[in-house]
Amino acid sequence: MQRQAIRAPRHASLNAVIRSVGPLNEVAQASARRRLDTLTKPPGSLGRLERLAIQIAGITGCDLPRLEHRTIFVLAADHGVTSEGVSAYPQAVTAQMVRNFASGGAAINVLARLVRASVVVVDIGIAASLPPGDRRACDPGELVILHRKVAMGTRNLAVEPAMTDAQARTAIQVGISLTDAALTPKPDAICLGEMGIGNTTAASAIVAALTGLPPAMVTGRGTGIDDATWVRKVSVIERALALHKPDASKPLEVLTQLGGLEIAGLVGLVLGAAMRCIPIVVDGFIATAAALIAVELCPAARNYLVAAHRSVEVGHQAALQRLELEPLFALDLRLGEGTGAALALPLLDAALALLADMATFDEAGVAVHV
Amino acid sequence: MQRQAIRAPRHASLNAVIRSVGPLNEVAQASARRRLDTLTKPPGSLGRLERLAIQIAGITGCDLPRLEHRTIFVLAADHGVTSEGVSAYPQAVTAQMVRNFASGGAAINVLARLVRASVVVVDIGIAASLPPGDRRACDPGELVILHRKVAMGTRNLAVEPAMTDAQARTAIQVGISLTDAALTPKPDAICLGEMGIGNTTAASAIVAALTGLPPAMVTGRGTGIDDATWVRKVSVIERALALHKPDASKPLEVLTQLGGLEIAGLVGLVLGAAMRCIPIVVDGFIATAAALIAVELCPAARNYLVAAHRSVEVGHQAALQRLELEPLFALDLRLGEGTGAALALPLLDAALALLADMATFDEAGVAVHV
Repeated sequence: MQRQAIRAPRHASLNAVIRSVGPLNEVAQASARRRLDTLTKPPGSLGRLERLAIQIAGITGCDLPRLEHRTIFVLAADHGVTSEGVSAYPQAVTAQMVRNFASGGAAINVLARLVRASVVVVDIGIAASLPPGDRRACDPGELVILHRKVAMGTRNLAVEPAMTDAQARTAIQVGISLTDAALTPKPDAICLGEMGIGNTTAASAIVAALTGLPPAMVTGRGTGIDDATWVRKVSVIERALALHKPDASKPLEVLTQLGGLEIAGLVGLVLGAAMRCIPIVVDGFIATAAALIAVELCPAARNYLVAAHRSVEVGHQAALQRLELEPLFALDLRLGEGTGAALALPLLDAALALLADMATFDEAGVAVHV
Repeated sequence: MQRQAIRAPRHASLNAVIRSVGPLNEVAQASARRRLDTLTKPPGSLGRLERLAIQIAGITGCDLPRLEHRTIFVLAADHGVTSEGVSAYPQAVTAQMVRNFASGGAAINVLARLVRASVVVVDIGIAASLPPGDRRACDPGELVILHRKVAMGTRNLAVEPAMTDAQARTAIQVGISLTDAALTPKPDAICLGEMGIGNTTAASAIVAALTGLPPAMVTGRGTGIDDATWVRKVSVIERALALHKPDASKPLEVLTQLGGLEIAGLVGLVLGAAMRCIPIVVDGFIATAAALIAVELCPAARNYLVAAHRSVEVGHQAALQRLELEPLFALDLRLGEGTGAALALPLLDAALALLADMATFDEAGVAVHV
């Protein structure tokens, strides 16, 4: 069945959103595939870029898609579990880094300018009040700060559920709404980014819960913790799993028990973008943990995902494998903010430019395969 | 010892050029390394991009280098070994593809426009006469075709040396001269590209000769040959090695016996660019085989190389390992033309923009590592 963007109502229930995510457009995919085989190159010789072009044609329903407007969403929230001493940085750094995003000095700002993307920073649960000023010009895109605080951070997942069911659902709705018509122009592609001191602990706990792997196998060094802190981080996650006994078949419950508010928002962002037929570039470990929950809730959303990179975080590879996603590159990144996803945009641009702009064998008068 | 671009005379002997390639600038590298550790990110969290920024600082001798002018050199030549039936395409495709480059319809043209690079196509040994017209505007860079034909293709390496010693040396000199002041503006970075039906056979023979690996382990499918053709290709290389008995300690002799004129030109391009302190982005199998010869001739040239990607060609990995180069990505490419190298330029830009443009912890008022 061929379909385009069956749009759920603005404030549709989560189930309605999930049902609205359909398969990729096969007609557009077949058209892209046919065209690629007429271009002046040995068939298939552009490898992964050809598969990427076909996927984006299928997502957007366009034979020759272009990604003019691209938005990097950086969802920021705090984590009660930082009180266990699991991070190399104090919790206050989350809000400090959001101010750094606002002044354009963070890594994601630099990369956004380079790849012509807008940055939308969303306070979905920072444990501090941000000043209201929220919009400034940011050549070439725009930098927007959205105030969508669901709570002043999560609770400590090692001793109680990180959030209530209502908070998780509200945060998911915030994410779903981020790609709706309220933000213009509608993005042609989005990148998943996040900021939240302590959020690799939440992501490791989620990936352990959903894959069944032991915490030590999916827990990394985060921002750069030492051996003693790593041992503590693993033991915090083990305590959390023993306490909540998460049920892998109930991804929303796992999210509520172990998640962060930015992770819940990213789950919604994936679902909303998939519903609206927008390609989704996944970043590192935290974004991938969120994508994993989204796909557990809505398996059809998987085909809308492009995995940008494989990070240093050991749990990232486990999450990518569970999603059966092959990253485009592995550059030993471990920063988050959407930086890896932003770096992938030029490869998406290249795939689509090759599809659209190369000459065919006929046009160029080149002899075809003998 | 700190040094910058000890320039050899315009038509210096090969040995003088080799002696002119010095170590990287340690002061610039140390400065870049220090700055990276003050930026608003966990130390080292930009992984490979940090090492890339430091390397380019060392190559260029600038603390905050930028790659404004970048040139993709596509050296084109024909191969006598095509008479053995080792390729999926007829020899005439080399010249046809060069005309396709000239009209801007090839993959490398599309990518060059995307990454803001100029394309310089060099006829260094095509077995056909190209029309003299050689320069056309090519937004945003320029497309230049240079007529530097050393011979109408090589001879069949399976039955005689591919070229004479004089031809090899002349082709190397052509390559050395490509980055001299005659071409303005002087490039801040170059990409190695090539076109030549049959040149994976030459590259496999060279890599087998220099690594000692058996031909079957370094021979791939080129433009897409079938099993029977692959068996023939391997046996052609085995015959060539049995005939010439290449001596791995004499890389110039190996090049003469087995090389292509575009490969010889790329050897010179590497040496000339290294001498002039220009970062060199290596493309796929053929470009890497040329880089391997260049580094065997001049070990100091290795530090000027950035490996863009790992291609599908099985011998490429062997050549990269021999050079101890880690590619930035692996996208199953097998096209050549410099396409993989062009795709790496945005990553180089990103590394340098992050180095130069991110805020420091002090500037941003962010708490440092606890």
